[in-house]
Amino acid sequence: MSLLYVIKIGGNIIDDDNKMSSFLKDFSAIKENKILVHGGGKLATRLAEKMGIPQQLVDGRRITDAETLKIVTMVYAGHINKNVVAQLQACGCNAIGLSGADGNAIQAHKRTSGNIDFGFAGDIDSVNQSLFSNLLSQDLAVVLAPITHDGNGQLLNTNADTIAQEVATAMSGLYQVKLIFGFEKTGVLRDANDDDTLISRINKASYQELKAGKIIFAGMIPKLDNAFSALDKGVSEVIIGKAENLPQLVNGHSGTLITADPV
Amino acid sequence: MSLLYVIKIGGNIIDDDNKMSSFLKDFSAIKENKILVHGGGKLATRLAEKMGIPQQLVDGRRITDAETLKIVTMVYAGHINKNVVAQLQACGCNAIGLSGADGNAIQAHKRTSGNIDFGFAGDIDSVNQSLFSNLLSQDLAVVLAPITHDGNGQLLNTNADTIAQEVATAMSGLYQVKLIFGFEKTGVLRDANDDDTLISRINKASYQELKAGKIIFAGMIPKLDNAFSALDKGVSEVIIGKAENLPQLVNGHSGTLITADPV
Repeated sequence: MSLLYVIKIGGNIIDDDNKMSSFLKDFSAIKENKILVHGGGKLATRLAEKMGIPQQLVDGRRITDAETLKIVTMVYAGHINKNVVAQLQACGCNAIGLSGADGNAIQAHKRTSGNIDFGFAGDIDSVNQSLFSNLLSQDLAVVLAPITHDGNGQLLNTNADTIAQEVATAMSGLYQVKLIFGFEKTGVLRDANDDDTLISRINKASYQELKAGKIIFAGMIPKLDNAFSALDKGVSEVIIGKAENLPQLVNGHSGTLITADPV
Repeated sequence: MSLLYVIKIGGNIIDDDNKMSSFLKDFSAIKENKILVHGGGKLATRLAEKMGIPQQLVDGRRITDAETLKIVTMVYAGHINKNVVAQLQACGCNAIGLSGADGNAIQAHKRTSGNIDFGFAGDIDSVNQSLFSNLLSQDLAVVLAPITHDGNGQLLNTNADTIAQEVATAMSGLYQVKLIFGFEKTGVLRDANDDDTLISRINKASYQELKAGKIIFAGMIPKLDNAFSALDKGVSEVIIGKAENLPQLVNGHSGTLITADPV
């Protein structure tokens, strides 16, 4: 099976033009099949402020009302997605930018969660494996905005980490998939404030020990649970690290490798 | 050669939710290969007003400065393009929405025109025939936003009529192409204020007569010059009419047929 990288980046890269430009050069240099999933960043919040649209939070989570959905669609699928694609083209990387509605790439349903109405937030139902494999086979790099659709004409705001994971999982039947989560730290750390305390490799056994020892806690637990779930579903490797270090994340010289291997 | 419809719609449809929804149902019902090119509509202007960005006009033409480019990218390639695609999916039409940057679909250069700086306005250099034919061969309907790129990372605002014409021309080597321009009138009229005075067919000879008799004048002249230019370059038919009448435009029962045929 040929290799496919699914790489997710977030606001810490997207909001920094210099870092972003350098990241996109590194991304372009990857010779294998590749899918880039980008999150949002601060621009959507700034645009909502400019337009006088209040951001609603319930239990610390943003609610995607109709006006917010319009903004994130414009910013994520319009401004960010098309500028990323244009920059990749300038690097000699033939990229195609999609939302989940395009080619029915990712179908989702509106989240229903107890008594909280999250608005137009989408939970993923299916990933169109044949669309992605056809585009990749044309030597296109796919750039995904975190917007999906429900098949009934409704766009939905969808978590970019989840999109990366679901796409990686869906494609693992056809490719050897390496899933890279770029975030603000060098990887999973023994001391969250010290980038030099990187844990370079975690398997299921060591994960249990790290949790028991309270070295891994809080926000890292769902990230790692998701990583192991992706491995269980066929993804070959999950790597968590700094997006600025993409070449080193790809060649195994940076980041934390999450692996299903016993040792 | 199989048939391909290239259909352009403008603000009079895009700005009217009911007309748009009905148009997209009709578009979905077309069984042949199809490409939809959409213009902008009023939303970009309204958004610029909300954000306090002044619209600059020179000789009645809008100047695309950097902030305006950001807005049209968000509105055209984000909001409009993705909602059109999601609605087509709901009609059972598997559509994929692209800007000219995506897959290097349409490359352009920044317009240079004497002393006037039009800002980030693009004039088209090339259309990626193989990308379009590959997507069409996967039974995808392509939905194009009027945004192109220059290959050096710069997005460019580009006239939707011109995109429709250039794409139609480029694809005419591989398909029998019918190019439909939807606008606010039923077609080319003898009396611009009376929809019942439709001229149902124009060829080169009758065009000269209609121009000489001042029946065709002003804004219709460049439209028709462009139509004949498309026919000269291999497009098989150009039809101008009301987008609301799409089924009739497709079956030849509405609109003005511009044809290279002598009679």
